[in-house]
Amino acid sequence: MTVTQATQPEDRSSDVTSPDHGEVADQGLVVDNLKYTLDGKWRDVRNYARTHMDRTDLLPDPTLSMQEARDATFAKLGELAQLDFAAAGFRPEHGGTGDVGAAITSIEMLGYADLSLMVKAGVQWGLFGGAIENLGTQRHHDRYVTDLINLDLLGCFAMTESGHGSNVQALETVATYDADSDEFIVHSTTESATKDYIGGAAQHATVASVFAQLVTGGPGEEPTGRGVHCFVVPLRDDKGNALPGVSIADDGPKGGLAGVDNGRLRFDHVRIPRENLLNKYADVDADGTYHSPIENENRRFFTMLGTLIRGRISVAATAGAAGRKALAIATRYGLTRRQFEAPDSDDEIVIMDYLAHQRKLLPLIAKSYALNFAQNEVTEELHEVQTANPESTEGDDSFAGRQRQLESLAAGLKAMTTWHASHSINVAREACGGAGYLAENQLSIMRGDIDVFTTFEGDNTVLTQLLAKELLSAYAEDVRGLNTVGWARFIANMARDVVLEKSAARQVVQTLMDSSDEDTEESELANRGTQIRLFRNREDHLLRTCANRLRRATEEGNDPFEVFNAAQDHLLKVGHAHMERVVLEAFIEGIEGCDSKAATDLLGTVCDLFVYSALENDLDWFLMHRHISVERAKAIRRGVNDLCKQLRPHAKTLVDAFGVPEALLTVTMH
Amino acid sequence: MTVTQATQPEDRSSDVTSPDHGEVADQGLVVDNLKYTLDGKWRDVRNYARTHMDRTDLLPDPTLSMQEARDATFAKLGELAQLDFAAAGFRPEHGGTGDVGAAITSIEMLGYADLSLMVKAGVQWGLFGGAIENLGTQRHHDRYVTDLINLDLLGCFAMTESGHGSNVQALETVATYDADSDEFIVHSTTESATKDYIGGAAQHATVASVFAQLVTGGPGEEPTGRGVHCFVVPLRDDKGNALPGVSIADDGPKGGLAGVDNGRLRFDHVRIPRENLLNKYADVDADGTYHSPIENENRRFFTMLGTLIRGRISVAATAGAAGRKALAIATRYGLTRRQFEAPDSDDEIVIMDYLAHQRKLLPLIAKSYALNFAQNEVTEELHEVQTANPESTEGDDSFAGRQRQLESLAAGLKAMTTWHASHSINVAREACGGAGYLAENQLSIMRGDIDVFTTFEGDNTVLTQLLAKELLSAYAEDVRGLNTVGWARFIANMARDVVLEKSAARQVVQTLMDSSDEDTEESELANRGTQIRLFRNREDHLLRTCANRLRRATEEGNDPFEVFNAAQDHLLKVGHAHMERVVLEAFIEGIEGCDSKAATDLLGTVCDLFVYSALENDLDWFLMHRHISVERAKAIRRGVNDLCKQLRPHAKTLVDAFGVPEALLTVTMH
Repeated sequence: MTVTQATQPEDRSSDVTSPDHGEVADQGLVVDNLKYTLDGKWRDVRNYARTHMDRTDLLPDPTLSMQEARDATFAKLGELAQLDFAAAGFRPEHGGTGDVGAAITSIEMLGYADLSLMVKAGVQWGLFGGAIENLGTQRHHDRYVTDLINLDLLGCFAMTESGHGSNVQALETVATYDADSDEFIVHSTTESATKDYIGGAAQHATVASVFAQLVTGGPGEEPTGRGVHCFVVPLRDDKGNALPGVSIADDGPKGGLAGVDNGRLRFDHVRIPRENLLNKYADVDADGTYHSPIENENRRFFTMLGTLIRGRISVAATAGAAGRKALAIATRYGLTRRQFEAPDSDDEIVIMDYLAHQRKLLPLIAKSYALNFAQNEVTEELHEVQTANPESTEGDDSFAGRQRQLESLAAGLKAMTTWHASHSINVAREACGGAGYLAENQLSIMRGDIDVFTTFEGDNTVLTQLLAKELLSAYAEDVRGLNTVGWARFIANMARDVVLEKSAARQVVQTLMDSSDEDTEESELANRGTQIRLFRNREDHLLRTCANRLRRATEEGNDPFEVFNAAQDHLLKVGHAHMERVVLEAFIEGIEGCDSKAATDLLGTVCDLFVYSALENDLDWFLMHRHISVERAKAIRRGVNDLCKQLRPHAKTLVDAFGVPEALLTVTMH
Repeated sequence: MTVTQATQPEDRSSDVTSPDHGEVADQGLVVDNLKYTLDGKWRDVRNYARTHMDRTDLLPDPTLSMQEARDATFAKLGELAQLDFAAAGFRPEHGGTGDVGAAITSIEMLGYADLSLMVKAGVQWGLFGGAIENLGTQRHHDRYVTDLINLDLLGCFAMTESGHGSNVQALETVATYDADSDEFIVHSTTESATKDYIGGAAQHATVASVFAQLVTGGPGEEPTGRGVHCFVVPLRDDKGNALPGVSIADDGPKGGLAGVDNGRLRFDHVRIPRENLLNKYADVDADGTYHSPIENENRRFFTMLGTLIRGRISVAATAGAAGRKALAIATRYGLTRRQFEAPDSDDEIVIMDYLAHQRKLLPLIAKSYALNFAQNEVTEELHEVQTANPESTEGDDSFAGRQRQLESLAAGLKAMTTWHASHSINVAREACGGAGYLAENQLSIMRGDIDVFTTFEGDNTVLTQLLAKELLSAYAEDVRGLNTVGWARFIANMARDVVLEKSAARQVVQTLMDSSDEDTEESELANRGTQIRLFRNREDHLLRTCANRLRRATEEGNDPFEVFNAAQDHLLKVGHAHMERVVLEAFIEGIEGCDSKAATDLLGTVCDLFVYSALENDLDWFLMHRHISVERAKAIRRGVNDLCKQLRPHAKTLVDAFGVPEALLTVTMH
């Protein structure tokens, strides 16, 4: 794709308030500078996408039947394939162009258009393609990658089963190796082994990457379960009919994502050739001998799963975009909609002038900024990790640690962003009243589409817990595979003073902290260093007390599940606090990247609002644990109001800087 | 309708834990007793409805097109008309059976089946019928009531316009009296005067109750605007074609309520006979002379609007039912779904056993109980007010005060219940994972349907503010009509020590308070009197400080809008705190109505959870204002966990007691 290089727009001061609707006028350059900063490293990809996406026909059409919606989405997927953006996700030696960051960014931009299209693209190129790319070896790359990029091969990703979503290790589909025929026999052993909610399975996919328990044994060896592995299983013939032994059912209408054909798959002793095992991390010889470079089964499983991280990151990125778009729509509406007369005037008041309305929208906009910067960092890190030379990183422990840290961060960010997006779209709909409920105004469609983002690619509660467990176990090896009891015992056996391994403080953050008073109560709350300290202190406090609590309870000989379960809310809070700290630090780093004075100042105020409203939302904790005094708590409440007032004249500037193509903001509300 | 009389089921102790899924076994009688108590005064109507509603074909069918869904809903409306339940909402002398409570309860029960059907029924019998019943006089009752009960006349309620929803006094549709022809000329004066989102307008309604600015003058008098009045305006001829001057457009697909045909209406100098003015509170003579028994225009307006309160109460009731049903579905799923192995066992853990899952669902169930009891009280009060003999109450100030208090309460309860329902359905969907997203499992349809409940019949934020203003102005006359500036000035002029007129404490509540320590920190938190005190003290504190703040700021000569706006979040909090107190007291009264020891004990624990989680959600306020100490705050957090643990074995009992007909809980999740 040909993208032109964007440069930081020239700065210019402009702070004139237009009397019209209380908005600061002539903010074009501030918008450009904000956008440049928010867009991050792949800004050219974003601008390229914007050019191609400024078309209302990309929006989901609510008048279509389910079948028509699926057809329309599929047709749009074909258009995307023409734009070559899919190739970015695959290494050049496999037939791609090898720009992982561009691939994520392109898919993120679909969040401004149509979430069904994003999911179709994500399933084809991200999940199915990602399984081939990351779990397969040359024979798979040669055979599938070019075709799947071009949509000559349509795939789906058959991991989840009716009985197991979060607990992937307990999947019940079995692939048994048969040495006599050199084949695997794929079989749905129980009712709950049915592959379910599989995007693409109901209609379009001709092949699936199927996750199943591998059973095999070498000569003289009893066939043994080797854990979950991934297999390429053909589903349909050229005419679209299910192949022998494959049963396909349609999941039917859903709460949204009308353009995605989710379905169910069952396998009745379906035979596939041995080479259909995606064998990068484990292989089976012709005689049935199993071998893997990773000896520990848990570690192998999590290594395999870890390579699929891209799906989770794409989902977070897209949800972030959808949330921003909803807030842009609601803000524009709030700036034109009037209701109730102003005092001593016959004119009605623009609803964005009401404090209650500002409090609904502006803190969510501020959080969207924060998450956008955090997302940019995660995308960059993913790009670096996945485009690193495999030979130079193999066996490099620090690189493995970096991968693992990225996985935790991706899990946490996915949960935080999808919850934020779902909440923002809800609030935006309500802020637009009856008009917001009409499908033609997009918000209600987005509300239905976004809902399941909190569930797929990992249930948000489970992901937050996963993150928290990782933080508690301080990235110790092989802890991830432990079940609840094993993990609780591990925590109990940790050194008495848990050393909280933390990502080294970034330069900017460290400088800000150094210039602030260690006594947070004495330091100005507006001081960025104080803000970081409050977030860090909360995280440290929660981590430390959670670890101590688990250790103590376990030492006292309590039932391990009871110990874990009684602390589950504490554990989840560790995850939330960690993410909020990480996101704040990303925001601060992001501001550093802005060269414009006016935009930097505005970003600073937005960052303050993010901080103040995050503190406000968790004030009870800060008060209860005496990290914040009552007086300061009251100042925080007032501060949110003040910051809303300060940002009110910039509301349109802030949402314009999201750079949602104008055609995709088309609504009939006035 | 023939309903059999229910009696309180005989008590029986049963507290055996079934080893199966951790549920208390043999709870049939406890369920029956809880249900009996929850069902309230119109329990026979509920049971009658349950008998008739135990059919899966009442559920919305997600595979239907918009047109098919509208047809199907309309057909179901016809069935309802056969059941005679509509007649309950109209006085016997008008052609009904005059059981207002039964009418509300019947419509509430539709919340267990299909919200589209509820809205269609609510529009026809509650809103359109209610306008005829309450704003019309004998000529309208004689002409319309029987027909509208039987669906021989199909109506819609044309109040909201594109430009005005919350601010009804600013509607732009005008009805000008023309004495020469003895007609009103109804006209949409501007683009934003378009009647919008009108349920029934797009297809079924042949007539509308249209709210418009009445303009008339007597002989020699200049035609003058008299404020908003309601007129019966025919829309369609027998063949369904729009009548001359009437333009009808379809609002098209929406975020839910697929079975409701919302549309837009425009009037181009449409002539209607003079008698089509619903003239209970104001009339126009043949010569154009205007007269009304209520002289003050604002008071007249609010009196007219006040009679339409039934719609708001129905919406709250139905939302409550929908929320309960969603929680019942999610709880059942949580009791069968297993994920992740238990320690030292190959069995996976029932997800309801996880604290995080209990914390998601159980506090919402507790709040549903609380709201159910509050709803019962409001329904009873509405029944008494609307079935009172008009001759004995006319001019009775205390009766007028009672009406007005009911209006405030209905506004507050509508906001609280619809937010709760929308939130509960969201949480329930997420708690059911991917299965929850499939339309066949109902939650995602309910999620779309319930969304607009927070908007229609009054935007929740506006309603909460309305309630708070009423509380602040202590039911002073004629304050409601004041605009923001007038109202702020009024508050400023109030006596320095605001006397907070409050509903007399109920007997039970007073007794409980008397038996508790006035120093809430010294008293047991589990003590019901202490709990009431905490809720009451919060409300008093907020009311007092809000009034003082407004008065001080106004006295200092600040801009009245700024004064009001700066305190808007404070004002909204007054409304929330008031409602939570009222709902708690209703819960306590409700428990008194239960004769069974086992059920009473369980209700007590549920009430505790409602209290503890309400306190937990507002802990920062209690801490900041030193109504609760840090130590007690921590005890509250632990208390929520403990109460969840205590109620976990009763989860199924609690949701079974909602009495959702089994067929309406049909889902395919397992």
